[in-house]
Amino acid sequence: MSVRALAAMAAKNPVEPYSYEAAALSPTDVEIEISHCGICHSDLNVIANDWATSVYPLVPGHEIVGKIAKAGAESGFSLGQRVGVGWQRSACLTCALCLAGHENLCAKQQAICVGHPGGFADRIVTDGRFVFAIPDALGSAETAPLLCGGVTVFAPMRRYGVTAGSSVGVIGIGGLGHLALRFLRAMGCEVTAFSSTPQKREESQQLGAHQAASSTEVRDIRKHAGRFDLLLSTVPARLDWITFIQTLKPNGVLCLVGAPPGLLQLPAGPLLTGQKTIAGSDIGSRAMIREMLEFSTAHKIGAQIETAPMSDANLALDRLRKNDVRYRMVLTN
Amino acid sequence: MSVRALAAMAAKNPVEPYSYEAAALSPTDVEIEISHCGICHSDLNVIANDWATSVYPLVPGHEIVGKIAKAGAESGFSLGQRVGVGWQRSACLTCALCLAGHENLCAKQQAICVGHPGGFADRIVTDGRFVFAIPDALGSAETAPLLCGGVTVFAPMRRYGVTAGSSVGVIGIGGLGHLALRFLRAMGCEVTAFSSTPQKREESQQLGAHQAASSTEVRDIRKHAGRFDLLLSTVPARLDWITFIQTLKPNGVLCLVGAPPGLLQLPAGPLLTGQKTIAGSDIGSRAMIREMLEFSTAHKIGAQIETAPMSDANLALDRLRKNDVRYRMVLTN
Repeated sequence: MSVRALAAMAAKNPVEPYSYEAAALSPTDVEIEISHCGICHSDLNVIANDWATSVYPLVPGHEIVGKIAKAGAESGFSLGQRVGVGWQRSACLTCALCLAGHENLCAKQQAICVGHPGGFADRIVTDGRFVFAIPDALGSAETAPLLCGGVTVFAPMRRYGVTAGSSVGVIGIGGLGHLALRFLRAMGCEVTAFSSTPQKREESQQLGAHQAASSTEVRDIRKHAGRFDLLLSTVPARLDWITFIQTLKPNGVLCLVGAPPGLLQLPAGPLLTGQKTIAGSDIGSRAMIREMLEFSTAHKIGAQIETAPMSDANLALDRLRKNDVRYRMVLTN
Repeated sequence: MSVRALAAMAAKNPVEPYSYEAAALSPTDVEIEISHCGICHSDLNVIANDWATSVYPLVPGHEIVGKIAKAGAESGFSLGQRVGVGWQRSACLTCALCLAGHENLCAKQQAICVGHPGGFADRIVTDGRFVFAIPDALGSAETAPLLCGGVTVFAPMRRYGVTAGSSVGVIGIGGLGHLALRFLRAMGCEVTAFSSTPQKREESQQLGAHQAASSTEVRDIRKHAGRFDLLLSTVPARLDWITFIQTLKPNGVLCLVGAPPGLLQLPAGPLLTGQKTIAGSDIGSRAMIREMLEFSTAHKIGAQIETAPMSDANLALDRLRKNDVRYRMVLTN
């Protein structure tokens, strides 16, 4: 079966039409007829080979929604069922981490777009054990970005016990950050948005923030000293972490879901005296993706999207490169 | 009532005989006739004014054990009762953190030796709400170092859920680190000691470690890649944190209880992909001190000490400065 896809033939190339033969389905595999695919910042990273793990031709796309076109006998899915796939395509499912429900930390985990073709395509064959049923109440286009961006910000909220009344700051109001604002508002939190873009600071209140501040002006950040139980940073940029740490309460957590380049520079003293924590978080487990989809259904949460036909993928990628998307671009077939 | 103490009259001075008039007892205060006082590395810091908070004349000493000589009517203590005091002398007891049992994080907390005279003395008047009954089974000299050093390493073990079977590394085998080895071994952990001192690495197995490694040789540290649930650093020194982070399992925690000078340099990538955590911990709450004393009683844990008469305090301080103590110096009256 031939898949019509879009692929970057080398690092930093635009994507271009590319066909490949899909593998035969194993008993746990499914073939998905893709209707929507979100574009995540990490698609730009893998196209550019920023992490030195890319394999070309590279078919990007890992926020996939579509319908089951073929279902392996043991997949548990039925034809026509609406499903989604995120960043992770597989794990060993036998190591201690997998058995404990942390398959997103499995040493043998594989990603959809790294060494395997992704969702910039009309279809994909992938392991049904990492495919998720989409609840009927959720729209396909608005849900595609939840599969990666959504769970990436939702998982640390659960891990760090965010609940009604928690004070949470979100740094970077893009594809991930705007979803964080929506989740946090629905959880009953006191929500602060930090963005370097004045217009996004204005828009952040419609997205769920109670207040907004600059992510780059030290004086603006300092006004929030001692405020946050959790500070969630979605930006792959160097920021003034020393000042941001001062915005945490004692026992507060700065959780990074975007990786800044180079080394973080952090003072040890404020970590000790306020028992503060710096941590990273990496997408989410399958249980967390299900929980996030249920929460999104209950609270009517989806991404704020712009759509473009799959054929305009290069224009869409360029708009993301220019930080010009409000707030997630979703390609449609 | 005149207290006969030893005080540094200015930063970095030796201590010298110094008398002061103790305040009258409030209803919650007690007067303790001091029998033993441990010497902690932070006594060197406050004598040297390393944290720019010292007030002179400065009476060091905050690992105090003695007997109740006077008891305020509301103190709950009785004359002759054996008690101990650690680093913290007071907190507001009304803020949200205090009410939640985190008085060690109270913004208004005060330390024994900072602006108040400490335990290098024949007696001390202090708030009985931060004084702890010493269980009969524990020796006074071996218990004094538990009040600060002990709880400082015990608290993060509880906070991070250390339990039988946990793999824990301890960096720096001094006053704090040797107690960490003893606690961890009693908890049923797999225990690894990291020290820059070859002789301490040899001695660490008698203290509870299953194995020992250099804390400064990268090749030695790397042999423990992916090993630890918790890595507890007791050293106020710059180490190769990038390599140490590689010794953590996914979801592992590097907890600092000693503050390295300058800025920590940390890569964000390994924090994200393994969901690793860097955090600080600051002494422990009153509940944690009680729990630690109960644990020490049940498992017969005390500090490995050397004793010296109070009059030899300067010699004892110098030995600590030279990293020549095995493993905690305790002054006796």
